[in-house]
Amino acid sequence: MRLGVDAMGGDFAPAEPVQGVLAARDQLGPDDRVVLIGVEPAVREHLAGHDGWERFIQIHHASEVVGMDEAPVEALRQKPDSSIARMAEMAARGEVDAVISAGNTGACVAACQMRLRRLRGVYRPGIAIVVPSYYGPVVLCDVGANVNCRPRHLFQYALMASEYARRICGVADPRVGLLNIGREDAKGNQLVKETRELLRAGPDVKFMGNIEGRDLFRNVCDVAVCEGFVGNVALKLMEGLAQGLFKSIANELPQSKPELAGQFRQAISTTREKYDFNEYGGAPLLGINGICIICHGASRARAVVNAIRVAREFATTHMNDRITERIARCQGSLHE
Amino acid sequence: MRLGVDAMGGDFAPAEPVQGVLAARDQLGPDDRVVLIGVEPAVREHLAGHDGWERFIQIHHASEVVGMDEAPVEALRQKPDSSIARMAEMAARGEVDAVISAGNTGACVAACQMRLRRLRGVYRPGIAIVVPSYYGPVVLCDVGANVNCRPRHLFQYALMASEYARRICGVADPRVGLLNIGREDAKGNQLVKETRELLRAGPDVKFMGNIEGRDLFRNVCDVAVCEGFVGNVALKLMEGLAQGLFKSIANELPQSKPELAGQFRQAISTTREKYDFNEYGGAPLLGINGICIICHGASRARAVVNAIRVAREFATTHMNDRITERIARCQGSLHE
Repeated sequence: MRLGVDAMGGDFAPAEPVQGVLAARDQLGPDDRVVLIGVEPAVREHLAGHDGWERFIQIHHASEVVGMDEAPVEALRQKPDSSIARMAEMAARGEVDAVISAGNTGACVAACQMRLRRLRGVYRPGIAIVVPSYYGPVVLCDVGANVNCRPRHLFQYALMASEYARRICGVADPRVGLLNIGREDAKGNQLVKETRELLRAGPDVKFMGNIEGRDLFRNVCDVAVCEGFVGNVALKLMEGLAQGLFKSIANELPQSKPELAGQFRQAISTTREKYDFNEYGGAPLLGINGICIICHGASRARAVVNAIRVAREFATTHMNDRITERIARCQGSLHE
Repeated sequence: MRLGVDAMGGDFAPAEPVQGVLAARDQLGPDDRVVLIGVEPAVREHLAGHDGWERFIQIHHASEVVGMDEAPVEALRQKPDSSIARMAEMAARGEVDAVISAGNTGACVAACQMRLRRLRGVYRPGIAIVVPSYYGPVVLCDVGANVNCRPRHLFQYALMASEYARRICGVADPRVGLLNIGREDAKGNQLVKETRELLRAGPDVKFMGNIEGRDLFRNVCDVAVCEGFVGNVALKLMEGLAQGLFKSIANELPQSKPELAGQFRQAISTTREKYDFNEYGGAPLLGINGICIICHGASRARAVVNAIRVAREFATTHMNDRITERIARCQGSLHE
């Protein structure tokens, strides 16, 4: 398998993406290759001194970089030789089998949509993240690809994310929840109410009904669907709150139990890691005719390692075939 | 001041609201009175054995109860003698100066809107909660009163929540953020983009621009505005995540450091309390011509004590006069 990694993507590029690729060597198969896409001299500099990288890494030069804050579509137009634009092109030409980027998410989604197109039957791609919880992972989709959602988009997110939960998270029959402001039918906006009817009528969906934000952590569902605005706010809120809580605890400890602070820090590290986005891997853009894994902008090398793992699992489980089949099976319920 | 408390509201009513009122005695002034509104025999049963409650508590009988899961408007129509309906009526007739309920939020908002009406110039009331963070409190508005928001509603939430942050949280010049999926102007939906223009043009608002979910915990703003669907999902997500994290830590500790678990538990209790909704008090319904404090459905007595404190501060700071003045000052910017 050939993995295209955006060497210029993210707040710590190219150092961390390059380190991540080097660190992922052990999990690659003998025939796997990584193509680092980016400004060649900068990439080479970070590879220098690492023995034998040439045996599994190639460099594809791209002279431009899309900034994290740039408007996606304009940036792609103005920077045709950016790492993101080149990466998507290479995937479209079949020169790489999967792409991974911690760069500008909007630009990455737009480039993949433009170059790779969508899977047959899919209306809109959605980004799925795996939310860690005490009871196990919950797949949340969409977290920011689509802020103008229609009911049929959300319905398809439920199908695609269910396949993902089954094949990648190992949940045999994923329970699907619709993120809402209350469990009762009377609650919610028009989008949620119409989506609920589609999900209820849809064959092949284990629909648990409306869920609330807290239900993500209460073993109520394995998949939660929402439109991209809500999902993106939710994602970043969770990240901020988890960091803030650990910070509060770290600050509290030396005051109340200075002699135990060191041991305590060690003891909560397991929990902390569980809630660290660097640990739970990249987020797939579901519904694209290809494999695109999006990483957090603040990704460190370990996040890139995890994203490579996810991309490989996506390929070996034939995720896109599974999604296409499932979308086709359920298409009827959208047109009745 | 006379405080009307819904004795039948919440998952643990009437026991916890009644206990909360009894526990709040110390913070009441000599002329303050509480009216417990609900099914009289049930309320009396929980008061029995508590010395001298008659000196500051009255009971107002209401024979019906709105269930937590009922559709708000129908419930109010079908149950005219419910504690929520009676409570709002009493406030409208001036028989109580403030109302407090941990019951059905939608019914409480609808009853107050119907009976008390809105403050002059206010388009829609919004529920404001105080989010605890490492750096201090952030007032988030709206968390569920209004799921069909227009830009001018969000603009007014910024004004009202700023007054609240100033008078109740003690922030001299509150910084306002608009909750979005990215900081850049190009990001977000139509509602957010139009609201941003109003906030930028509005006089008297210290507008910091778009914020992301994580910025609530990063000392970027003191007030965050969003529409009620997003805010409600966010609120419940924070609650669930905080509970889940503490649960994970509590589970992790005995495994890694069994001999220290007891001491650790004690050490994190300060942080845990800080993030417990029972501690940070009720949520005011801003924009109502009266004082309405909404409590979490799972409120315990302590949450009711805190809600009573908030209601008294709302009155003593003349919050509604401040809001009306501020809305009037800024009205021009909505009509230009």
